[in-house]
Amino acid sequence: MADAIRLSRSASGVSTPNPPVGAVVLDPAGDVAGRGATEAPGGRHAEVVALDEAGERARGGTLLVTLEPCDHQGRTGPCTSRALAAGIARVVYAVRDPNPLAAGGSETLRRAGVDVARADDDEVTAAEQGPLRAWLHRQRSGRPYVTWKYAATLDGRVAAADGTSRWITGPESRRHVHGRRQEIDVIVVGSGTRAADDPSLTARSDDGSPTRRQPLRAVMGLTDVPRDASVRGTDGRFRHLATRDPAEALALLGDVQHVLVEGGPRLAGAFLAAGLVDEVEAYLAPIVLGAGRSAVEEAGVDTLGGAHGFEVRETTTMGHDVYLRMTPRTA
Amino acid sequence: MADAIRLSRSASGVSTPNPPVGAVVLDPAGDVAGRGATEAPGGRHAEVVALDEAGERARGGTLLVTLEPCDHQGRTGPCTSRALAAGIARVVYAVRDPNPLAAGGSETLRRAGVDVARADDDEVTAAEQGPLRAWLHRQRSGRPYVTWKYAATLDGRVAAADGTSRWITGPESRRHVHGRRQEIDVIVVGSGTRAADDPSLTARSDDGSPTRRQPLRAVMGLTDVPRDASVRGTDGRFRHLATRDPAEALALLGDVQHVLVEGGPRLAGAFLAAGLVDEVEAYLAPIVLGAGRSAVEEAGVDTLGGAHGFEVRETTTMGHDVYLRMTPRTA
Ligand SMILES: NC(=O)c1ccc[n+]([C@@H]2O[C@H](COP(=O)([O-])OP(=O)(O)OC[C@H]3O[C@@H](n4cnc5c(N)ncnc54)[C@H](OP(=O)(O)O)[C@@H]3O)[C@@H](O)[C@H]2O)c1
Ligand SMILES: NC(=O)c1ccc[n+]([C@@H]2O[C@H](COP(=O)([O-])OP(=O)(O)OC[C@H]3O[C@@H](n4cnc5c(N)ncnc54)[C@H](OP(=O)(O)O)[C@@H]3O)[C@@H](O)[C@H]2O)c1
Repeated sequence: MADAIRLSRSASGVSTPNPPVGAVVLDPAGDVAGRGATEAPGGRHAEVVALDEAGERARGGTLLVTLEPCDHQGRTGPCTSRALAAGIARVVYAVRDPNPLAAGGSETLRRAGVDVARADDDEVTAAEQGPLRAWLHRQRSGRPYVTWKYAATLDGRVAAADGTSRWITGPESRRHVHGRRQEIDVIVVGSGTRAADDPSLTARSDDGSPTRRQPLRAVMGLTDVPRDASVRGTDGRFRHLATRDPAEALALLGDVQHVLVEGGPRLAGAFLAAGLVDEVEAYLAPIVLGAGRSAVEEAGVDTLGGAHGFEVRETTTMGHDVYLRMTPRTA
Repeated sequence: MADAIRLSRSASGVSTPNPPVGAVVLDPAGDVAGRGATEAPGGRHAEVVALDEAGERARGGTLLVTLEPCDHQGRTGPCTSRALAAGIARVVYAVRDPNPLAAGGSETLRRAGVDVARADDDEVTAAEQGPLRAWLHRQRSGRPYVTWKYAATLDGRVAAADGTSRWITGPESRRHVHGRRQEIDVIVVGSGTRAADDPSLTARSDDGSPTRRQPLRAVMGLTDVPRDASVRGTDGRFRHLATRDPAEALALLGDVQHVLVEGGPRLAGAFLAAGLVDEVEAYLAPIVLGAGRSAVEEAGVDTLGGAHGFEVRETTTMGHDVYLRMTPRTA
């Protein structure tokens, strides 16, 4: 099961509404016979990939899968039929499918005589917190999962007095940022950051070359984005979100699962004030500036008791820097 | 040896120029026969405490000590004579005494036939980074060791827009702060913090009662400190440092070993700009304010390349908060 969950991290179909599922097929002796992760849009579901690889070894075997196998036709045909055709005897899944169209897979399998079990609590939590998180969020809330990322000094500055801001953090942190850019669907920055830094917002490897998978790049704000702005690129994956309303901006993005808000301070403030931040990634550089823009401005907070509160989920040192991952504190 | 180092953390004589030494006496069989830590001013040195406890078991035994035993009369008589009188056969010490008046202990012991050895590198580092650090710093630089401590939000704020600042961090962090206040000699805040918060700057236990050992309390700045200011207290342990020059303020404090600068932002900026911060303790609360004073102002930095840089030595979560301990980055 842990294997199945790990596998799905490398799923390449994250930018579609297809859930990033991982699947493993065990033969009757309990040996791994096939593994799969959701393929790109139009491609196979994870279960089908794993069953294809297992072939005849799947007969009488077990299918481990992070999400309950789907029971609807969709683009790819129900996974339940494929599992039955392959002769699977037992299915263990972690997370129940929240999509009413696709749900009911367990029932279908049970009626056909398959032994269906829910994974244990730890495995369920791992699957819900792991690669399925953004997809589940979209299914349950109707909007994408929003991560706000920033890089700041000890005194919370994101630029020096003279406007210089590259680079606050070290190469290890920047490599991590580029890795994250490959996992999400859209990067958004405000007009101010666009104008100040002319960022390209691409995901790049260590040698500076763009990686295979690239997120959509978006600039939010009423100001026009100049024709020669780096963010436009040449691949057609640029969007101007001509609004100041975070909820409207997310709606304009359509059916995406995971949005990364990369600042600046006023855009971050607007998403926080709107209650539209589901996760925070902070890269803290152990340096002090004593002047310059702060990481957040205009977040709708006047007094200490009204602060936006988070829970630290992860703390790691990255080179000289400290990385914190957080989720909103629930009262 | 590790034991000796740990022991000396609880030394109570930290506020005097006496080094906070730890000592352990082993009998000839290698069993611990005595332990000691530096006593309050006028009291015994750690070696003497440990030798007194060991009594006759010290004969033919080993003395482990964090600092080379002193060889001068001082207030307490040379430790070397006491070790020889007790019949110690072997001495292992971690750090050589940098005070020319007290040095030479190893030579004296060797001439008397004692086997004297320096501890291994790890033990030396532990002793230098541990309780001896502030004392060694004073001996080597002629000024006290300065720790700058602050509590800030993710966006680096130390107060909200309306000035509220209690409490940014949680009870676990505040308990840690009060523990640290017992270990240092002087707490300094600026006139601005004095006026804004009227702090008492005492070290307190969980129930709010003052702990036995209390640091000196100092306010730095040209403004008079009102007669009814809480910081004055009733124990005579208050100082007004009527200057804006950090080096002058340290000189005014006289022969102290460890100074804790507790802010606010302008005082922190002044110590950083003067290059007089030897250690930073940051208590980061995972909350966002988006407005209010930043942790540091006016630190003499205009551009990113001129930032004050630190090395993270320790990262710990404290309740909801994250604690970072840092020392200046050396080029
Ligand atoms: N270290 C980091 O992590 C990091 C990241 C990003 C930026 N930065 C720094 O941040 C600085 C730029 O700061 P900034 O505040 O100007 O950037 P910003 O937050 O990116 O942009 C502000 C602009 O965004 C638009 N906007 C869209 N929705 C908004 C809303 N709800 N509320 C307010 N404005 C909204 C407005 O432009 P319109 O008038 O067009 O509507 C506004 O002027 C630069 O120095 C940059 O280097 C640092
Ligand atoms: N969260 C925390 O860790 C923390 C800690 C402390 C304070 N705070 C907050 O910080 C705010 C107060 O900020 P602040 O900047 O006014 O406080 P501050 O830095 O404590 O005090 C500034 C004052 O210190 C004096 N001063 C002495 N040497 C100076 C120098 N070299 N440069 C500049 N000033 C010097 C000046 O007063 P004279 O005119 O008298 O010379 C100056 O007005 C309050 O809201 C407080 O709650 C937060």
